[in-house]
Amino acid sequence: KWKGAPEIKGESGWSVKPKGRVLYDFANLSSVPSTIDIPGEGFSSEARRLRFGIQGTMPGGFGYKLIADYLDGVVLTDAYMSYQDGPLKIIIGQQNTFQGLEELSSSNDTSFVERSAFTDAFGFERRVGLSATYNLGDFMLEGGIFSDNIDDLNDGNNSFSVDGRVTYATLVDDALIHLGSSVHIRDLGDEIDSIRYRQRPLVHSVDTRFINTDQILGAEDELSYGLEAAVIAGRFHMAAETHWAKINRVELADPTFFGGSIEAGYFLTQDQREYKGGVFKGVKVSNPVGNGGTGAWQINLRFDRLDLVDAGIVGGEQDAYMASLIWTPVNNVRFLLDYGHLAYSNALDIVEGAPKDFSVNVLGARTQLSF
Amino acid sequence: KWKGAPEIKGESGWSVKPKGRVLYDFANLSSVPSTIDIPGEGFSSEARRLRFGIQGTMPGGFGYKLIADYLDGVVLTDAYMSYQDGPLKIIIGQQNTFQGLEELSSSNDTSFVERSAFTDAFGFERRVGLSATYNLGDFMLEGGIFSDNIDDLNDGNNSFSVDGRVTYATLVDDALIHLGSSVHIRDLGDEIDSIRYRQRPLVHSVDTRFINTDQILGAEDELSYGLEAAVIAGRFHMAAETHWAKINRVELADPTFFGGSIEAGYFLTQDQREYKGGVFKGVKVSNPVGNGGTGAWQINLRFDRLDLVDAGIVGGEQDAYMASLIWTPVNNVRFLLDYGHLAYSNALDIVEGAPKDFSVNVLGARTQLSF
Amino acid sequence: KWKGAPEIKGESGWSVKPKGRVLYDFANLSSVPSTIDIPGEGFSSEARRLRFGIQGTMPGGFGYKLIADYLDGVVLTDAYMSYQDGPLKIIIGQQNTFQGLEELSSSNDTSFVERSAFTDAFGFERRVGLSATYNLGDFMLEGGIFSDNIDDLNDGNNSFSVDGRVTYATLVDDALIHLGSSVHIRDLGDEIDSIRYRQRPLVHSVDTRFINTDQILGAEDELSYGLEAAVIAGRFHMAAETHWAKINRVELADPTFFGGSIEAGYFLTQDQREYKGGVFKGVKVSNPVGNGGTGAWQINLRFDRLDLVDAGIVGGEQDAYMASLIWTPVNNVRFLLDYGHLAYSNALDIVEGAPKDFSVNVLGARTQLSF
Repeated sequence: KWKGAPEIKGESGWSVKPKGRVLYDFANLSSVPSTIDIPGEGFSSEARRLRFGIQGTMPGGFGYKLIADYLDGVVLTDAYMSYQDGPLKIIIGQQNTFQGLEELSSSNDTSFVERSAFTDAFGFERRVGLSATYNLGDFMLEGGIFSDNIDDLNDGNNSFSVDGRVTYATLVDDALIHLGSSVHIRDLGDEIDSIRYRQRPLVHSVDTRFINTDQILGAEDELSYGLEAAVIAGRFHMAAETHWAKINRVELADPTFFGGSIEAGYFLTQDQREYKGGVFKGVKVSNPVGNGGTGAWQINLRFDRLDLVDAGIVGGEQDAYMASLIWTPVNNVRFLLDYGHLAYSNALDIVEGAPKDFSVNVLGARTQLSF
Repeated sequence: KWKGAPEIKGESGWSVKPKGRVLYDFANLSSVPSTIDIPGEGFSSEARRLRFGIQGTMPGGFGYKLIADYLDGVVLTDAYMSYQDGPLKIIIGQQNTFQGLEELSSSNDTSFVERSAFTDAFGFERRVGLSATYNLGDFMLEGGIFSDNIDDLNDGNNSFSVDGRVTYATLVDDALIHLGSSVHIRDLGDEIDSIRYRQRPLVHSVDTRFINTDQILGAEDELSYGLEAAVIAGRFHMAAETHWAKINRVELADPTFFGGSIEAGYFLTQDQREYKGGVFKGVKVSNPVGNGGTGAWQINLRFDRLDLVDAGIVGGEQDAYMASLIWTPVNNVRFLLDYGHLAYSNALDIVEGAPKDFSVNVLGARTQLSF
Repeated sequence: KWKGAPEIKGESGWSVKPKGRVLYDFANLSSVPSTIDIPGEGFSSEARRLRFGIQGTMPGGFGYKLIADYLDGVVLTDAYMSYQDGPLKIIIGQQNTFQGLEELSSSNDTSFVERSAFTDAFGFERRVGLSATYNLGDFMLEGGIFSDNIDDLNDGNNSFSVDGRVTYATLVDDALIHLGSSVHIRDLGDEIDSIRYRQRPLVHSVDTRFINTDQILGAEDELSYGLEAAVIAGRFHMAAETHWAKINRVELADPTFFGGSIEAGYFLTQDQREYKGGVFKGVKVSNPVGNGGTGAWQINLRFDRLDLVDAGIVGGEQDAYMASLIWTPVNNVRFLLDYGHLAYSNALDIVEGAPKDFSVNVLGARTQLSF
């Protein structure tokens, strides 16, 4: 059976499937204030994700996923074994920590070249842990206990987190409604005593962060929580998320930062966004180019806010207005074009020479193949 | 044909099979003397092995194996091409150097989370070389000439070793008897002039070595040799190994160190250890959980000694008493639970603050999926 | 369908194929002048290439290739997505830049263990870019615009190049005639201001470069161009290439360096070199060893010149005389034996202690498996 790559299935529960993705980005950053001198102004490009791995199942309900990204050496993304028994799924190993709707949806299926600013800013990442997912009809419960990212584990790192998410999805007059909420409590342990929140200007090929708290010292615990809502109604979809991150510090004020975004999209062709298991899935192109069709064409708009100013920490605020055009000629292949106007405030000297308030414009393009 | 993953076979000798393993460890180290302050005390965890690669055969008797471990960047394990002609097998490339029964058996099939202390202490590793294996009925002869590990090769490293092993395996009243011996002679060459022997306390997630010779300077050659014996009688098995390692030094005394272990195990279920080609193989679960069975349950006991004290070198002695419980719900998946009481002597200040004699306790757990 | 590995094909354009290669080299460097003290003299060995990846196609004409080399960490080679429509092929991502006949032919199919000296000396490498190939009967046009190698991309690297190649291939009395030419113009951008040309003595396991311009400062642009000619007539083949590389510098003289080689080869068995799409392909062994045959046996001779002396830059000259014997027992497996006599001039102190004129001898051997 072909799902982008052959999923080879054997008797009694065996299956195996190669997984890969090739994403290249091209970007242009303009309107940077003349007092700021950064190498990323103008054109930049990069390989955004080059991943390869394998996923499979075994008799008895066991499965595995082992994927690595080959940029900057090799970095493991998903690396776990799983056990499925009816509505219950247990996962041991490196995995996502139920951060939220957009973070949990594959980066192959996003509406823009990058996810909302807060998902990177608040340090969402995969971590090693033990999790359980339980399906209860329209409700889905997810929770787990995690240590740290596989590259940050050593015998002195005793940080750990408890993460949970609950989602509700139902059909109302053929429209899918998704509601969700997640909570994340992390004890930083004995070795970690600072946290830094920061974010790039929409495109990843630019390394400058116009918004950046720098290392917040004295950190002991991190508490974050988010709300999610989404609608898919035929060719139309809408999604909104908010997330708050609070750092508890020793004998210092405890700042709470905020990020959130709202987006709406529409397919110009007879297509729609897919949804399954509490996350968005890739579009199934109804008229692919190989068969004389035009592929799927989609436009999206987004407002994306990130506020890194609180309790004496001045990391800047970002209000971003974005539009994207996505062409999916066939399943597994996408071309994205994005425009973003990013307005920063409370950003004085966060980057050397930055004024208090300014804005930049970015144009981003991506070619994407995934399976 | 499924062997954990599909082994795709074509006409006239073609075959190819993906290979992978996902091993996560969780450990607790306790009873460390209060004068020793190390980060690994208490709970620690790590991804122990995340490997992926490919193995195959071609017409004419040629084959290959190319496997990498993705932890700490990427490290090649087996990386060779082979030629098989009847009882003779020739291998060129990075491979094991016929070190001994437990080292040559896959780490997927061990009786404890880690192999006997001497296998790491004496620096057993894969090396690049040319080897031949010859099967003579009950006897098997293995030998080769090797340079160094693929990561240590450079145009100035002219170290080389000659390694050989002979094994004898026969059936006596349905019981398999294995006897073996190996010899290893290594010229360190012009660039390498020191050797260090050391070992972790049973679990790999703890980085402290309570037993450690530090760099032994003036080393020119290394001679090591070992004896092996094993019995598989139905659900019961026993295995014992000893190994001596001698360092020849310039104008300095030549120390000889010793390591050895003896273990016995018993399956609580109708299962048994497998053996083939001079090494242990994975259990073939007779009643897997997917078919209403309980999987295979096995208990093991081991005494493991390592003596790194000789000829003026005082690297400590370790006497370890261990027990393990292994659940293999289906072929290719294992869960291991280990307990170890490790008594150290002649260990004064090998770790800062260590008394001459002390002991520690460790609890180790592993989840394992391999194919 | 087996092509070294199974090429799994599905309905409507799907296909996927694992790709790998295992190459080990063994070399001996002798006759080095006694005033030169280098570690690589005498025997050296290394894993030359250990690559693994995946290649596939999708409906609609889309395809991809994702290959990494696992030596020295992990280095991406081909990493691209492609689109084919009749005679036109478009590639986005890291790929070769149409450098020349021998560079574009796979290193699995070369006549010697290494390609001609100029191919490494002039810095031929894969780069990220957008390219198009167009087939016009006997003619083939290739061209593209490229940034830099994937490991050298960052948001300040704005170097780019335009690369083009035209080839003509036709049959004259059963003999294939290939003619080609390529041109390469590269703007080094704001961050790169120097270029270094250098080369090893035939075998890659020796790290010393007897010929080396060192960093040529003040470089702004690089212009290089080459000519190609080849003949395959039954068991006989001949190939010749020349390449000039010119560096444009700020207020400094602009040196032009030259490299070129000519080779002739003959199969002792009923075999011949293959050619397709403007490059050499691997031999299809007519009598493989598995079927009682002797495999393919080939001898080759080559003269290889590299001149790195011009406009005040004295990087040395190399005239190399080489012979090789290649045994291909079955498709996908090769054993190579090479001899080279390398005469250097204008090489005073390029390596510490080097006289103005001298020569060295090298013996190189390779075992190779690829699919």
